[in-house]
Amino acid sequence: MTFREDGYRAVDWAADYLERVGELPVMAQVKPGEIRARLPESPPDSPEPFEAILRDLDEILLPGITHWQHPRFFAYFAVTGSEPGILAELLAATLNSVGFLWRTAPASTELELLVCDWVAQLIGLPSGWHGHIEDTASTSTLAALIAARHTTGRNVVVCSEHAHSAADKAARMLGMELRKVSSDEAFRMRADELELDDVAVVVATVGTTSTTSVDPVAAIADRCAAAGTWLHVDAAYAGSAMVCPELRWAFEGVDRADSLVVNAHKWLFTPMDCSLLWTSRPDDFRAAFSLVPEFLRTTDEGVLNLSEFGPALGRRFRSLKLWAVLRCYGREGLQARIREAIRLAELFEGWVGDEPGWELCAPRPFSVVCFRREGPDEVNEAILDRANRSGEIFLSHTKLNDRYVLRLAIGSDRTTEDDVRRAWDVLRDLG
Amino acid sequence: MTFREDGYRAVDWAADYLERVGELPVMAQVKPGEIRARLPESPPDSPEPFEAILRDLDEILLPGITHWQHPRFFAYFAVTGSEPGILAELLAATLNSVGFLWRTAPASTELELLVCDWVAQLIGLPSGWHGHIEDTASTSTLAALIAARHTTGRNVVVCSEHAHSAADKAARMLGMELRKVSSDEAFRMRADELELDDVAVVVATVGTTSTTSVDPVAAIADRCAAAGTWLHVDAAYAGSAMVCPELRWAFEGVDRADSLVVNAHKWLFTPMDCSLLWTSRPDDFRAAFSLVPEFLRTTDEGVLNLSEFGPALGRRFRSLKLWAVLRCYGREGLQARIREAIRLAELFEGWVGDEPGWELCAPRPFSVVCFRREGPDEVNEAILDRANRSGEIFLSHTKLNDRYVLRLAIGSDRTTEDDVRRAWDVLRDLG
Repeated sequence: MTFREDGYRAVDWAADYLERVGELPVMAQVKPGEIRARLPESPPDSPEPFEAILRDLDEILLPGITHWQHPRFFAYFAVTGSEPGILAELLAATLNSVGFLWRTAPASTELELLVCDWVAQLIGLPSGWHGHIEDTASTSTLAALIAARHTTGRNVVVCSEHAHSAADKAARMLGMELRKVSSDEAFRMRADELELDDVAVVVATVGTTSTTSVDPVAAIADRCAAAGTWLHVDAAYAGSAMVCPELRWAFEGVDRADSLVVNAHKWLFTPMDCSLLWTSRPDDFRAAFSLVPEFLRTTDEGVLNLSEFGPALGRRFRSLKLWAVLRCYGREGLQARIREAIRLAELFEGWVGDEPGWELCAPRPFSVVCFRREGPDEVNEAILDRANRSGEIFLSHTKLNDRYVLRLAIGSDRTTEDDVRRAWDVLRDLG
Repeated sequence: MTFREDGYRAVDWAADYLERVGELPVMAQVKPGEIRARLPESPPDSPEPFEAILRDLDEILLPGITHWQHPRFFAYFAVTGSEPGILAELLAATLNSVGFLWRTAPASTELELLVCDWVAQLIGLPSGWHGHIEDTASTSTLAALIAARHTTGRNVVVCSEHAHSAADKAARMLGMELRKVSSDEAFRMRADELELDDVAVVVATVGTTSTTSVDPVAAIADRCAAAGTWLHVDAAYAGSAMVCPELRWAFEGVDRADSLVVNAHKWLFTPMDCSLLWTSRPDDFRAAFSLVPEFLRTTDEGVLNLSEFGPALGRRFRSLKLWAVLRCYGREGLQARIREAIRLAELFEGWVGDEPGWELCAPRPFSVVCFRREGPDEVNEAILDRANRSGEIFLSHTKLNDRYVLRLAIGSDRTTEDDVRRAWDVLRDLG
C-alpha cells in the first residue's frame, strides 16, 4: 500500500470537504435504510485500494451524512472539529497508543494530565484537581456516580428536571435511585428543596441541555457539604465558556465540587470524543476504580495509571488533539471564538424578540436561544420539520413548561453572522 | 491556517514514523515525570502554528512513547493500527459526526450495523444478531452485565479466575456480586462447577488474557440455558481469529451466547478504539439502555438509534475505520495475517520447547506463548526487566499456578520471522 499517497488523497478529501461543507444540505436528506441498501451485504474476499473508500465515501455515504461541521448546524449543541484537532487524530491513530498503564504510554499519560491542568487554568478551577479524559459526558457522569456511591455508601442520585438524561441513564445502569427536584422560572434547580440525608450525589448543571440555565451551585454545595453528599457538576457545554473571565459568574461554587465534567468536543473546538473529568478527591476516585490484576503489575515506581481513575482499561491518546487545539488557538483565540458565538446568539435573540408573532422562551446565558412561533405546538413542529428538510439549516427542539420550543445553538467556529441571518430568514418565512 | 499543507506534513510525519518505528526502542526509556517536565505548565496565550505540534511531537513526546506499532511489541495483546484504519480516522475526525440518533448520523448508524454484520459473517456468527461498536471491551462487558441484570432481575456475575479483570471491575462498578469458579489444568473454566440458580450472567472467555485458553462455551451455555442465566462471551482477542475456518472449534457454543465482544482494535488491524458488541437479544438490550428524553425525540419512523443499545449517548464514527480495514485487507488478507501470526508463535514455541533450561507454561491455541526460564521467579522478573529496558523487545508477564511467567504475544502486521527470532535471541542471551 502506498500510505503516503493515500494519505495525501485523504487530506485533499478532508480539505475539499471542509471548503464545501457549507454548500451541502445540513441534515442528511435520505430515508432510513437508503445508505445501507447501496452497500454490499458482505465484505470483499480480496483487498481493495484505499481510493475505493474515498470514492464510496463521496458517492454512497455523503448523502447520508448530517454535517456537524456545517456552518448552519444549530441543533443540540453545535460543535467544531477544528483543523489542528483533526490532524492530531491522524497522528494519534498512527501512534495507536493504548494508555492503560503509565508504562504503556508515558507521553500520553503525562500529556493527558497536563492538558487537563491547562484547561483547569483556562476555566479558573482551583489548582491541584486531578483531571483525565473520558469519551463522553455519559461516561464521565457514570464515573462520578460510581465514585460517589463508593465513597458515601449511599445509593440515591438527585438532579433537577433539567439535568441531562445521562444522569437518569447512569442511575438506571447502576441500580441507583434517582430523585428529581424542581426548577425555578428560569429553569434552575431549587436548592432549597434539596433533602440530602441519604443522598450519595447531587448532579448540578452549569448550562442545562434545553436552555443552558445555570443551577445555583454555591447554594447546592452548601447543602451537599452539610449532608456529606458528593457534588458532581455537569458543565459539559458551558464549562468551555469559562475561558472568558466575564462569564465566570456561572462557575460560582464549582470550586467546591467533588467532580466536574466539561466536554472539549462540545465548545472547545476538539473533535469527538474528549470529555474532561476532574475531581477534587482523586484518592476517592482511585479507590472506586483501581483494580490491578497480576498481568498489569509493573515495577515502575511513583507513576500514575489513568485506567485506575475511570471505567475503561484501554484508553486512546485523546490528549494529543486537545493539546493541538489549545496551542493552535491559544487562550486569546479560544476567548475570541466563544465571545463571537455569544454575540451571534444575542443578535438572533434580538431579531426574534423584535418580531411580532414570535417569542423568546428562556433566558440566554450563553450561545443557545430558545424561542417559538406564538400559537400551537403543531405550528412549531411543522416549522422545525420544514426547516430541517430544506437542508438550509438544522435545528432541534425541546419542551419548556409543556410547550414545544425551538432551539438555535451556536458553537461552530465556521458559523458567521450571515449564517445566523439566513437561519432567521428561513424560520421567519416558514412562520 | 493552511489545513492542506499542514495535512500533508502530518501525513509525511505518519509515513516517516511507520517506516522508522522498528528502529526506535519499543518501550519508552524515560523516567516518570520526564516528559511533563519538558512541557510548559500553562497553555499559550497566542496561537501557535501546527508545525510546532509536529516539532514537539518529535523532540519532546517521542521518547515518552511506547511504540505499539513496533514490529517487536510482544506485550499484552500486540495490535496493529493499519494504514487504511489510520486514514479513516482522519476522515472520521473531519466529518466529526455524533451518532446518538439515526438522524444525526444516518450513514454512521447504518454503516456501523453493516460492518458488524460483515464481521459476524467473517467469524461465523448466526445471522440476525445485533451488533454495535463500543470503545473498549471494558465498556462492552459493562454493558452486557447491565443488560443481564436488567433482563434477569438477578445480581450475581460468575466468571473464571482467568477472565479479564474488566468483569471484576464492571461488577464492582455496578454493585453486583462476583463469584469466580476454578479452572482446569489448561486454564479453562470448569463448567461442571457452575451453580447458577441466582446468577444473572456468566462471563465465558474465548482467549483468556493470560494464556488465551478457551472456556468450554457449549457446556457453559447448557448450564446457562437451564438456569435462565445470561451468557456473555468475551472473545476480545481471539474472536478475530475466527475469520479462519480451521480455528472455529474455539467458537463452539458461541452461537448460543446472549452477548459477545470482539475487539477489532486487538487482532483485526483497526486503530483504537473499536470494540464490537453483538447480542442475540436486541430487544432486551434496548430495554436496558433506551431512554429518549424530549430533546432527542424525532419524527423519523422505522429508525434505530444506536445510543439506545449502550451506555453512551455521544458516539464517534468508528465504523468508518473498520469498513476501510475490512475492504483494504479483504477476507483473504485477514486470514493470511492471522495465520502468519499463529505460525510465528508456533515457531517461537518450538524454539523455547527445544531449549534446555526453558519451559512452556500453557497450551498455545493462538498467537500467544507463555514460557519461563526454569528456576525462581526472580530470574524471570529480571529477564523481563532487562529485555524491556534494552528497547529491543517489549514483553509482559502473568502468573500461572503461582509462578511468574513471560508472555510473547504476536499480533502486529509488521512483525516478521526475523523479529521473533531476535526476541528469542535477546531472551535466551539474558537467560
